[in-house]
Amino acid sequence: MKCNQCGGKAVVQMRQHKLALCAKDFLQWLPDQVERFIKKYKMFTHSDRVLAAVSGGKDSLSLWDILWRLGYSVDGLYIGLGIDGGIGYSDESRRLTEKFANERGLRLVVVSVPDVYGEAIPDMAHRTRRGKTKPCAVCGLTKRHIMNRIACEGGYDVLVTGHNLDDEAAALFGNTLNWATGHLVRQWPVLEARPPALARKAKPLCRIYEREMAAYAMLRGIEYIYDECPYAEGSKSIYYKELLNRMEADRPGAKLSFYVSFLQAKENGLFAPHADPNAESLHACTTCGQPTSAPGECAFCRMTLKVK
Amino acid sequence: MKCNQCGGKAVVQMRQHKLALCAKDFLQWLPDQVERFIKKYKMFTHSDRVLAAVSGGKDSLSLWDILWRLGYSVDGLYIGLGIDGGIGYSDESRRLTEKFANERGLRLVVVSVPDVYGEAIPDMAHRTRRGKTKPCAVCGLTKRHIMNRIACEGGYDVLVTGHNLDDEAAALFGNTLNWATGHLVRQWPVLEARPPALARKAKPLCRIYEREMAAYAMLRGIEYIYDECPYAEGSKSIYYKELLNRMEADRPGAKLSFYVSFLQAKENGLFAPHADPNAESLHACTTCGQPTSAPGECAFCRMTLKVK
Repeated sequence: MKCNQCGGKAVVQMRQHKLALCAKDFLQWLPDQVERFIKKYKMFTHSDRVLAAVSGGKDSLSLWDILWRLGYSVDGLYIGLGIDGGIGYSDESRRLTEKFANERGLRLVVVSVPDVYGEAIPDMAHRTRRGKTKPCAVCGLTKRHIMNRIACEGGYDVLVTGHNLDDEAAALFGNTLNWATGHLVRQWPVLEARPPALARKAKPLCRIYEREMAAYAMLRGIEYIYDECPYAEGSKSIYYKELLNRMEADRPGAKLSFYVSFLQAKENGLFAPHADPNAESLHACTTCGQPTSAPGECAFCRMTLKVK
Repeated sequence: MKCNQCGGKAVVQMRQHKLALCAKDFLQWLPDQVERFIKKYKMFTHSDRVLAAVSGGKDSLSLWDILWRLGYSVDGLYIGLGIDGGIGYSDESRRLTEKFANERGLRLVVVSVPDVYGEAIPDMAHRTRRGKTKPCAVCGLTKRHIMNRIACEGGYDVLVTGHNLDDEAAALFGNTLNWATGHLVRQWPVLEARPPALARKAKPLCRIYEREMAAYAMLRGIEYIYDECPYAEGSKSIYYKELLNRMEADRPGAKLSFYVSFLQAKENGLFAPHADPNAESLHACTTCGQPTSAPGECAFCRMTLKVK
């Protein structure tokens, strides 16, 4: 198999793009693609201060690497969740993230949930009704809260996350199976900031396949945590990814086509402008000041108060 | 397993409804469900003249049987496609349909495509560009043309088809994977008549699982053609049905929830009112007078003229 650009030996074949590339050309091609989507969806510019949420996994570390190489002004935010799972998950992901930042001389903000809020995620979750069996909802709520707080307090113009095409397609698939109006109407590569204090968010990898990201991390020599979060097993999102992978195997490009045709249909006005049930204005949490959909305390403060 | 209604021996278990029924109660329950959906979606009333498109398969014959038992005024329309496929597909399905009608003293209109249009579907398809490999597109176009013509010429108030939940969910799944705006905006249990001469259409079985229909046909002793159309093999709709069946096996009710939540989201105004690209008015075909989206000759007349 030959590289479609230089004729050398290809190491990555992307059937969905009818493209095969050597390591050198792939390491050029992927950041070019990311840059293209940053511009296409008007995510941010070179004068913006970007905060990248990094978990220590291949997607977020590669995203940080790519944005840094593309010359963006981008700091990292690592959230320590206090998850061990018998594999020292949080300790190891923090070590790899700090190593990555140090090697490149990049600024990393670290927020440790146990240090700041007094408890690790699994313990916090265990005390709440919905976290008894799985801490994922509590973890998601906590991460969204902290990411938004740091982005706003730090004066960043945009918060970026490493969601890749497989993540976005799986989320879309789940939202479509339930026809979850609010999620369908909001899902987009970039979400504008909203008063009071909801940070602008963007997903620069939303059109990049997970296996392309894995290839990038490997070829770039990025050391990342291989293990999934120990609590991810059996999640709906993994189930949807499996179904989409089956469709992709039967028809290369199926995943991309599903996501991109959704974006196009939306741009062409498929959804009614007022279909979003959460479109009304946000309120400031009476305890932390962060945005919340109903007047009073936000869900995160209600949860942490309940924990205390 | 006991019947949830009479405590007798259940013969049909419907995990998605958490319901098990004996033969007698199932044969009462299913028509009650169909009647419920006819009323819910305002498909037609007992004063309407109904034309049921019947293929000789379990769904359409059972639908005809159910509507007749519910006291609706319903004639049948059988379209002879001239498909043999080594199993005498069209001959056998016509024989079973005529037998069904005769046994019940019901009126059946028969239109033979080879007799009326001079050629069987596979031959007609073979002469057109898009029918070279598979005649399904030509067959669908022909059936839609004939169904609409007979419904209008016969002065029927509504044309009903035997599409069941599996059919509707598979169509929705395909339309969603491509975000086919026009199809998504139009898909509904009933479609209103439109000038000039587009008949009102309804799908009374749209919320009934295929396996419930198979159980109905069997328990009612309806003799139907078991074989699928020999050209159906490898179709996209069968592929989507397989995927949905896998989801249904993992989570009973998944198929129904997908379809019903779509209907609910639509009723709640998810789609923009003007998103349908085919919403503009229809024209009368200059040759046959039937409706067509562009001025001039309709696709069916263009095809049959090309054939001649």
